[in-house]
Amino acid sequence: MRIAQLQTSVTTDKKENIRNLSELMDGLGDDIDLVTAGEMFTCPYNTVNFPVHAEPEGGESWKALQALAAKHHVILSAGTIPEVDEAGRVYNTAYVFGPDGSQLAKFRKMHLFDVDIEDGQVFHESETLTAGNEVVTFDTEFGTMGICICFDSRFPELFRLMALKGAKVILVPAAFNMSTGPAHWAILHRSNALSAQCFVVATSGARDPDYSYVAWGHSLIASPWGDLVAEMDEKPGIQITDINLSEVESVRKQLPVLSARRTDVYQLTECNQMDTTA
Amino acid sequence: MRIAQLQTSVTTDKKENIRNLSELMDGLGDDIDLVTAGEMFTCPYNTVNFPVHAEPEGGESWKALQALAAKHHVILSAGTIPEVDEAGRVYNTAYVFGPDGSQLAKFRKMHLFDVDIEDGQVFHESETLTAGNEVVTFDTEFGTMGICICFDSRFPELFRLMALKGAKVILVPAAFNMSTGPAHWAILHRSNALSAQCFVVATSGARDPDYSYVAWGHSLIASPWGDLVAEMDEKPGIQITDINLSEVESVRKQLPVLSARRTDVYQLTECNQMDTTA
Repeated sequence: MRIAQLQTSVTTDKKENIRNLSELMDGLGDDIDLVTAGEMFTCPYNTVNFPVHAEPEGGESWKALQALAAKHHVILSAGTIPEVDEAGRVYNTAYVFGPDGSQLAKFRKMHLFDVDIEDGQVFHESETLTAGNEVVTFDTEFGTMGICICFDSRFPELFRLMALKGAKVILVPAAFNMSTGPAHWAILHRSNALSAQCFVVATSGARDPDYSYVAWGHSLIASPWGDLVAEMDEKPGIQITDINLSEVESVRKQLPVLSARRTDVYQLTECNQMDTTA
Repeated sequence: MRIAQLQTSVTTDKKENIRNLSELMDGLGDDIDLVTAGEMFTCPYNTVNFPVHAEPEGGESWKALQALAAKHHVILSAGTIPEVDEAGRVYNTAYVFGPDGSQLAKFRKMHLFDVDIEDGQVFHESETLTAGNEVVTFDTEFGTMGICICFDSRFPELFRLMALKGAKVILVPAAFNMSTGPAHWAILHRSNALSAQCFVVATSGARDPDYSYVAWGHSLIASPWGDLVAEMDEKPGIQITDINLSEVESVRKQLPVLSARRTDVYQLTECNQMDTTA
């Protein structure tokens, strides 16, 4: 399975950001299976921008991204874009499209990023965003995948649940910052890959020091053994990586962590609550 | 809080191993609050040894360790030793004694180490050991602590449960090997510290290449921010580290991960099953 991670620069012009993604995809070879983009790649990451740029599912950006997946016959994890529902609530939403342009999955960020780092990053997504309520896995020709967004990576419960629902690859559009990036970016993705015994594909936007929120970049892929398979620096670029999904079964056989869980002592369950805000 | 981690060489003579611990403790200053030892520090780590060296709670080794805690007025996390119950079942058991010699906690390894690493470590604890059934936290003058053993570190559920029960420090007597040590030792303890937002104090025996199971060593302490506070090499020795427990509250305030868990979407619960084998 060949993956192209597009670590893009983000401008304030939504259409230009999608055109940029389109041009990068035009430049890829015919042998790519999965293309990924970063969190909020259509607008600078700022709570003020989210409602301004938000569109409903099926909107203009959604249509453009759907068409890109179909044009290039790839699975497209189209980073995240702000989504607005009928009630006017705004979400940080990840869409995944299949090689025929159909929507394979939609995930709304479940844990909003509300942090106050001492002498570092302060951010409150909940000022303008609503949290999603669904654990999402989906089927592809390569097997089951899962998806979550950035701050969701700090909740191992979610990774366990996705793994138990069959995920072998977990997509994480994200944008860590200059406080949490150097401290936690690689270790969280590697340890989530290790405990879920999945590949984790974490894709960020490129770093732009002129924005109020400065992204760490460093898009990476971690293996089910917890190794860093590939990692970019902070600059705009494309990272192409081949992964071998048979490693998932191999690691699960060698270190039977998922099956050795003591479900007689503790239980991790999904509440299966309907997303009443949808 | 000042911690002394005793990374000892382990001989085949149980009494000699405890005498060695005693001599090391005699050499410590009066300002130590917590002393820790490694997993199965009284016998080489081998399934055949465990039943041979096993003693009931209150046995000869237990009494010697209890007396050491009282003599030095410290909290003593006396690594782990094989414990046998009335029915003849053998456990990998961690005892913790208080400065007055009382038993503060007892934890039986909950996830047995049954692995078959390709071209690497093969080990099956379940050949001679029975698993424990209780999540253990306990009160000390420094606040609540939790404890688990080695392979238990691969189960973030357990760390979350200990953190939710109030743990600020989690003790992990352990013995990773030459396959899993370089790959996973540091990252697991750091990521468990990060997701539980606790200090993790992981203590191993020293490396002896002559044994069938060769320990990785590298006793370490990880902070609630996921940093490595201190790490040893593979040789026998003592590591003395000061930790500031106010960091726990500070990190939990800056990155409110424990309180931001989506308990309306997923639930992690302890089954509160009685340990029927006790």
